[in-house]
Amino acid sequence: MSVLIVGSIAIDNIRTQTEQKDDLLGGSASYASVAASFFDSVNMVGIVGTDFPKPYRELFINRGVNLEGLEVAEGKTFRWTGEYEVNMDNRRTLNTELNVFETYQPKLPQSYRSSQLILLGNISPALQLHVLDQVDRPGFVVADTMNLWIDVALEDLNKVLKRIDLLVINDSEASQLTKKDNLIQAGRAILQIGPKYVAIKKGAHGCLLLSQDQFFSVGAYPLEHVKDPTGAGDCFAGAFAGYLGSLEKSAFDFSDLKKAVVYGSLLASFSVEAFSLDGIKDLTQKDLDRRFQVFRSMSHFD
Amino acid sequence: MSVLIVGSIAIDNIRTQTEQKDDLLGGSASYASVAASFFDSVNMVGIVGTDFPKPYRELFINRGVNLEGLEVAEGKTFRWTGEYEVNMDNRRTLNTELNVFETYQPKLPQSYRSSQLILLGNISPALQLHVLDQVDRPGFVVADTMNLWIDVALEDLNKVLKRIDLLVINDSEASQLTKKDNLIQAGRAILQIGPKYVAIKKGAHGCLLLSQDQFFSVGAYPLEHVKDPTGAGDCFAGAFAGYLGSLEKSAFDFSDLKKAVVYGSLLASFSVEAFSLDGIKDLTQKDLDRRFQVFRSMSHFD
Repeated sequence: MSVLIVGSIAIDNIRTQTEQKDDLLGGSASYASVAASFFDSVNMVGIVGTDFPKPYRELFINRGVNLEGLEVAEGKTFRWTGEYEVNMDNRRTLNTELNVFETYQPKLPQSYRSSQLILLGNISPALQLHVLDQVDRPGFVVADTMNLWIDVALEDLNKVLKRIDLLVINDSEASQLTKKDNLIQAGRAILQIGPKYVAIKKGAHGCLLLSQDQFFSVGAYPLEHVKDPTGAGDCFAGAFAGYLGSLEKSAFDFSDLKKAVVYGSLLASFSVEAFSLDGIKDLTQKDLDRRFQVFRSMSHFD
Repeated sequence: MSVLIVGSIAIDNIRTQTEQKDDLLGGSASYASVAASFFDSVNMVGIVGTDFPKPYRELFINRGVNLEGLEVAEGKTFRWTGEYEVNMDNRRTLNTELNVFETYQPKLPQSYRSSQLILLGNISPALQLHVLDQVDRPGFVVADTMNLWIDVALEDLNKVLKRIDLLVINDSEASQLTKKDNLIQAGRAILQIGPKYVAIKKGAHGCLLLSQDQFFSVGAYPLEHVKDPTGAGDCFAGAFAGYLGSLEKSAFDFSDLKKAVVYGSLLASFSVEAFSLDGIKDLTQKDLDRRFQVFRSMSHFD
């Protein structure tokens, strides 16, 4: 089945301690859609300005991403400038220009409204709800979020949590949302708000997956060097949803979700090895298969 | 084969944010020997004072630990008082009384000198070397260490590293020793100093195992509450060595070491659920088997 992915499409300026790159393709929908495209067909929903570079549009098309839901509005594309500290775990937003995103109200093309598998990428909870309202009968809904929305839009975020099946969230945000440092406690507290599953991303420490009565833990692919962590979480969510979509099922069991976590971790690991989408856009099936085998042998013990 | 375990035997006073317990059985050799005893026969080497409580001695005997190498010296047993902060990851030493440990020079009984499998528990590197010198032809040597020895005995610690097969170390200590924040880089730097393998313990984030060309990552058993983290690392090292001993082999392959890491993590998880050795001393084979199955299902994904 096709995966419906909504999120931001951005032009990023990235500063790390050693490099500075401007005018890169970024945004949660961009990363997630390209990551998902390795597993399933993708219907993207988002907005860009008339300045959106043609090569970036072509990158989506080359990955087979359906752009019927991509609105092009008079004006400039959303822009974000961020800086990473030495350890790459902490980043600061230096500048945000919402531009065409400021008044954006996502409108789903008719053909998207029967979507079964939905990824609400990292955008404001209000927009996530607005998208969900336009889907006839959602089958399985995955949502991502970030610290900003916990700070400024908690009420809407709680509404989202009651309408989704799985939340993707990182460790510090899980603790922020639930006021619990222990991630098992934090995960269980999130399940009590609404979703049946929560995936807690821990960066270099891997990822946890919790349901009411089941638990999964996978390490991160061992990387000595991280070039640009931007979009790693979006790639995780995109590959996660894309893998589930590829199963062509209406309900998933825990073992499906485990493998989705592994594929999410896998795409995230490729993503951080290069700036923007350069780490994932040209991946081959062989690249995916080889790294999947590494995940398998580094996790299994008999 | 029997496992030779050397380390400290202590009387601990422990303060957590909610509880305070005095005169507990502690010390690296105590935890490690009892943890190892679930897998293999254990020859313990250490020292206590004439004040050492009889019930603690009986605890070792009940677990089948061979005490021929346990010296009883005139005077008081080594005492340690420690306090944990809220998150249980940070602890402060409030008081240390070396007592009989101050002038201790471990002396191996003749029957221990042909030991093949050796765990140099967390004591000063000089004492670890002194023990190693008394073994005829060590087969496989595991060593543990701590931040204190990196600070005050780095030269001796480097000598230890050149004579062992596997180092057990926690994440912050691995970074401290190698001056590398990235744990994959830190692990590889440790392998360059000497050992063929390094196991990096990450507390609630689990454990990594690295060799020159292989990698393993296992999550921690999901615990919502930790009562007393004291000795978790010693239990890890003890169960690790004990499991290897139980294999009755002269050489181990990476899959053996993976399972040793899992059993190490498993005993550590039981240990932190209670003060002192209360979490592990009465474990049954059924307890071990059940938790091993949890580790398996939380780590395997097909």
